[in-house]
Amino acid sequence: MGEIKVPVVRNILEVNERLARENRRLFDEKKILVLNLMSSPGAGKTSVLERTAEALQGRYTMAVIEGDIQSSYDAERLQRKGVQAVQINTDGACHLDGNMIRTALENLDLDPVDVLVIENVGNLVCPAEFNLGEHEKVMILSVAEGDDKPLKYPLMFQISSVLLVNKTDLLPYVDCDLQAIHERARQLNPTQKIFDISCRTGEGLEAWTAWLEARIREHKGLP
Amino acid sequence: MGEIKVPVVRNILEVNERLARENRRLFDEKKILVLNLMSSPGAGKTSVLERTAEALQGRYTMAVIEGDIQSSYDAERLQRKGVQAVQINTDGACHLDGNMIRTALENLDLDPVDVLVIENVGNLVCPAEFNLGEHEKVMILSVAEGDDKPLKYPLMFQISSVLLVNKTDLLPYVDCDLQAIHERARQLNPTQKIFDISCRTGEGLEAWTAWLEARIREHKGLP
Repeated sequence: MGEIKVPVVRNILEVNERLARENRRLFDEKKILVLNLMSSPGAGKTSVLERTAEALQGRYTMAVIEGDIQSSYDAERLQRKGVQAVQINTDGACHLDGNMIRTALENLDLDPVDVLVIENVGNLVCPAEFNLGEHEKVMILSVAEGDDKPLKYPLMFQISSVLLVNKTDLLPYVDCDLQAIHERARQLNPTQKIFDISCRTGEGLEAWTAWLEARIREHKGLP
Repeated sequence: MGEIKVPVVRNILEVNERLARENRRLFDEKKILVLNLMSSPGAGKTSVLERTAEALQGRYTMAVIEGDIQSSYDAERLQRKGVQAVQINTDGACHLDGNMIRTALENLDLDPVDVLVIENVGNLVCPAEFNLGEHEKVMILSVAEGDDKPLKYPLMFQISSVLLVNKTDLLPYVDCDLQAIHERARQLNPTQKIFDISCRTGEGLEAWTAWLEARIREHKGLP
């Protein structure tokens, strides 16, 4: 079975890379900055998007592709914030892939969009292996998950250019050493940008959205 | 590619089922109750095992197979509690399978064991599809993950005979309706046993360990 399995898996990844490159070409043509947002279930991906949409409002236009195994709950949450949102249901699949994004793009009006965020399936493992055509991989870790996560899920930390450490308001109530998260993440990925945030209190969100706005301007070639 | 992929995936699942049945036969022969413990990263699998080991101490012998992509941190935590523990490193793979368990069993002395807990990779998606030979699938959900998780990861709730809702001490500080978790889980799985617990305060752990002890005795045919 090993002889059959290996080439098929490589094929899947190769086909995905080709589709990701095609998506990327479209994003660049339209000058849209694209983020692939990944985390464990319940780390706060949708809350971060709600807060980010509020911060960008009136200056930059955000759209969202929501990935979930089932339900359209998250896309509805964002539409209530006035964000153009499309829901992908993966029907059991543990990650998004380039083809799902290509299909979702047919249902989005990209012309007014400055930044497109793809909210991946809640999973700290599999999404790390599939490029979608994004410019930045952004991961969220909730402090409630504990400070040992970089040791146990290293690939996600290695491939993500940005780490949002969320739910810092819970630090007094959980066994989690914020400094240890930073040190362990830096060991895996010395250039990773780290922002400590709380979607509940708003703490730290300004630094994150300032970085994002600068990145959008840079991508558009604006001063 | 679809024509190649589907039969290979079926093959993998079929081979896994065969290996799971072989593991199960060994467990039954030795009268060992086996649990497959699954959750998102950081929901508290290892903490639950530490607390459970303390509760069983002196009456029943627990052993643990730890599944992690990398590191042996969790097995060391349990060995410090006097628990016989073996670590599997999946090297990137997102779930344990029957073959990994078979290999791990070669490194365990099963004769004194009453209950073997297999701590799966932190992932609310993929482990749900692979039987390991266990008698009970036990899942943990941390209240910090939010009450929408049954809607978004239904398979894990459907296949788990026991749900431990952990970190209830955080309820005052997070947006999570405990009653909604119960109702949504019951809709997916009406016979699921649900225990609300806090490994931090110890609340609710007694009901869980009482259930587990009764299940161990039942499995051994003891009164």
